[in-house]
Amino acid sequence: MRAVTMQRGKFSVDELPDLIPQEGEVLVRTCACGICGSDLHAAKHTEDFVNTSRESGGAFQLTTFEPVVLGHEFCAEVVDYGPKTERSLRPGTLVCCPPMLKREPPEPIGFSVDAPGGFSEFMLLTESIMTPVPSGLSAEHAALTEPMAVAFHAVNKARLEGDEAILVIGCGPVGLAVIIALKQRGAGPVIAVDLSPGRRDLAALVGADDVIDPAITDPYAHPNLMKSEQCVYFECVGVQGMIDQMFLGAQKNARLVIVGVCLQQDISRPLIAVNKQLNVQYVLGYTTEEFQETLEYIGTGDFDVTPLITGETNLEGVADAFTELANPEKHAKILVKP
Amino acid sequence: MRAVTMQRGKFSVDELPDLIPQEGEVLVRTCACGICGSDLHAAKHTEDFVNTSRESGGAFQLTTFEPVVLGHEFCAEVVDYGPKTERSLRPGTLVCCPPMLKREPPEPIGFSVDAPGGFSEFMLLTESIMTPVPSGLSAEHAALTEPMAVAFHAVNKARLEGDEAILVIGCGPVGLAVIIALKQRGAGPVIAVDLSPGRRDLAALVGADDVIDPAITDPYAHPNLMKSEQCVYFECVGVQGMIDQMFLGAQKNARLVIVGVCLQQDISRPLIAVNKQLNVQYVLGYTTEEFQETLEYIGTGDFDVTPLITGETNLEGVADAFTELANPEKHAKILVKP
Repeated sequence: MRAVTMQRGKFSVDELPDLIPQEGEVLVRTCACGICGSDLHAAKHTEDFVNTSRESGGAFQLTTFEPVVLGHEFCAEVVDYGPKTERSLRPGTLVCCPPMLKREPPEPIGFSVDAPGGFSEFMLLTESIMTPVPSGLSAEHAALTEPMAVAFHAVNKARLEGDEAILVIGCGPVGLAVIIALKQRGAGPVIAVDLSPGRRDLAALVGADDVIDPAITDPYAHPNLMKSEQCVYFECVGVQGMIDQMFLGAQKNARLVIVGVCLQQDISRPLIAVNKQLNVQYVLGYTTEEFQETLEYIGTGDFDVTPLITGETNLEGVADAFTELANPEKHAKILVKP
Repeated sequence: MRAVTMQRGKFSVDELPDLIPQEGEVLVRTCACGICGSDLHAAKHTEDFVNTSRESGGAFQLTTFEPVVLGHEFCAEVVDYGPKTERSLRPGTLVCCPPMLKREPPEPIGFSVDAPGGFSEFMLLTESIMTPVPSGLSAEHAALTEPMAVAFHAVNKARLEGDEAILVIGCGPVGLAVIIALKQRGAGPVIAVDLSPGRRDLAALVGADDVIDPAITDPYAHPNLMKSEQCVYFECVGVQGMIDQMFLGAQKNARLVIVGVCLQQDISRPLIAVNKQLNVQYVLGYTTEEFQETLEYIGTGDFDVTPLITGETNLEGVADAFTELANPEKHAKILVKP
C-alpha cells in the first residue's frame, strides 16, 4: 500500500507491505484524515515527544524513532475482516474509530510502527470500538470526530454548572472545537482570543460571543470575566509560558482547563495560583462513549464542523501541508485524502 | 510596647509606640503566637516574598521592606475597645481572630507595618471577626487555630467523597495539621511521607495510617495508592520541583492539593499531567466560618493539636527560634509568649 512515512521530521511517500488484520481487527481504506497539532509536534520535536511521552506513561505516545505513518483523525471504509470478528458492518460502510488498536499492549494508531495511521491508503482498526458513520454524513465531516471528541471531553471535564464566564485561549483547531462544544451546551458567554485575524474570524463563525486580539486588548480584563463569580479558562495553545500567563490573568477561584499540549518543561509561579486558589484540570483524549456521542452530534449538525476544514490534499501533498499549517492565517484543519 | 521587628531577615527586640484601636477595632494582649513557615519564608526570602506577593495580588502579602512585626497564629486577651465597637467580650476574655485588620484596604496582621503581629505584647484586631476561645481551652492550643484552619480549608477544597487513598507529602506543621483534619473526618487511608524520622513519628502520633521514609521507599508506589481508583495527594512542602515530582508519581486522574507555598518560579512538565489527566487545586487560607469551626474542633478535642507544639520561647528568643526551626528533627511548632 502507499503511505506517507515520517522519520524525525522528514516525510516520504513509500510503498509499504500490505496490512493483515489480526484477531478482532478490520482492514479499512482511508477516506479522509486530518492533520493534528500533535502530528506537527511529533514531526518537529520527535525527540521531546518520544522521551516525555515515554516518561509520562500515557497512551498518547510516539513509541519509536523509526519511520511511522502518522494520522489519527480519520474516517475510513470497511474492506475486510480478520479472524474472530463479528463482521457486523458490510464492506464499503463508512466508519470512525478511536485511534487505538486494542492489542496487548495497545498500539496508538498513527503513533506506532505497528499501527499505521491515516496518511496511508489502508489502516487496521479494532472492530469492537469501530462505529458506523451516521447515514448522510460525509467522510470529510466524520473525520473531524476525533478532534471534536477531544474538545467535547475537555468541556465535560470542566465541571460547568451553567453560570460561568469562559475564555478560550487559542483558536486553532482545538480551540475552535472547544468553542463548538461549549456553544452546543449553551455555556458561556464564550470569549475567544487569538493573535491571528483569520482564526478570530473562524472563532466568531463557530459561535464565540466575543473575539479578542490580545495584541490590542487584555483578554483577561474582558467585562464578562471581570464581573463573573466563576471564570473558566481553556488553554488551547500548548506553548511554554501560557500557564503562568493564565495564573497572572485569571480571576480568583477560577478553573483552568489545559487542552493544549506543551511538550517542553514549563515555568510557572505557584504562589500566584495559591493566592488565587486556582484549579487546574489537565485533560487528554476522550472515552469511547464520548467519541461515539461526538460522531452523533456531528451527524445531527449539533456540532457543525464545516468551518474547521480549510484545505484538502493527497499523500503527495502531506509534507507541504505540514509546512502550510505553520501559517495560522491560512488554515485550521487540512484533510488528507489518500 | 515591646515587640520583635524583622527587616530583611534581621530580628531585634524594640520598644514600639503604643497601639490605638481605630473604629471597630480591639486592643488585645498577645498570649501565644506560633511561628509559621511563611514567617520563615518572609525572613529568609524577603525580596521574593514581597515581589511575588505583590504581583499575584493575593491577601497573603508582606507589603514592605520596612521593619514589620511578624506573627499571625495567635491567641490573645481583650484589653480595650476602640470607637464604634460592641464591646461584647469583657476585658480578659481569650480570643482568636483571622489575622486581618478589616480596614480599607485590609491589612494582613503580621505582614504589614500598620498591623503588627503576635511577636509583640499587644495587637489590634477587628471586633467583627474576633471569636472567644471556648471555655477551658488553653491559649497555647487556641493559638493553633490559624494553621489548623489552613489545613481544614485545604481538606475542604479537596472535594473528598470518602473512598480516596491519600498521600500527605511533607509532615511539617502544615502536613501534620492536614493529617489531623483528614482523620477527623474519617478520610483515608492516609499515608504520610517525610525525610525526617522525628516528623514521621509526629505524623504517626496525629493519626497517619502509614508513614514512609522516601529515602528508602517510593511513597507513590504504596499499595493503598496503587490499588485505589481515586488518589489525592497533599503537597505540604512548598519547594521547587515538588509539583513535577508529583506529576511523575501520581496515579491517573488523581487530584493534587497544593498547600505548601513555593515562592520561587517552579518547573514542571505539563505533558505528564496531561497524560494522566491530573487535577491541581491550589489553596490558601480559609473562610471566617472555617476559622471559627476549627477553633470549636480544637475546643472539643476533635482536632488534637497537642503533638504539634514542640517548643515555647519569649520575645528575646524569637531570632533563635527561627534558626532552630530549620532543624526538622527538633521542632514542629514553636509558640512565642511575649
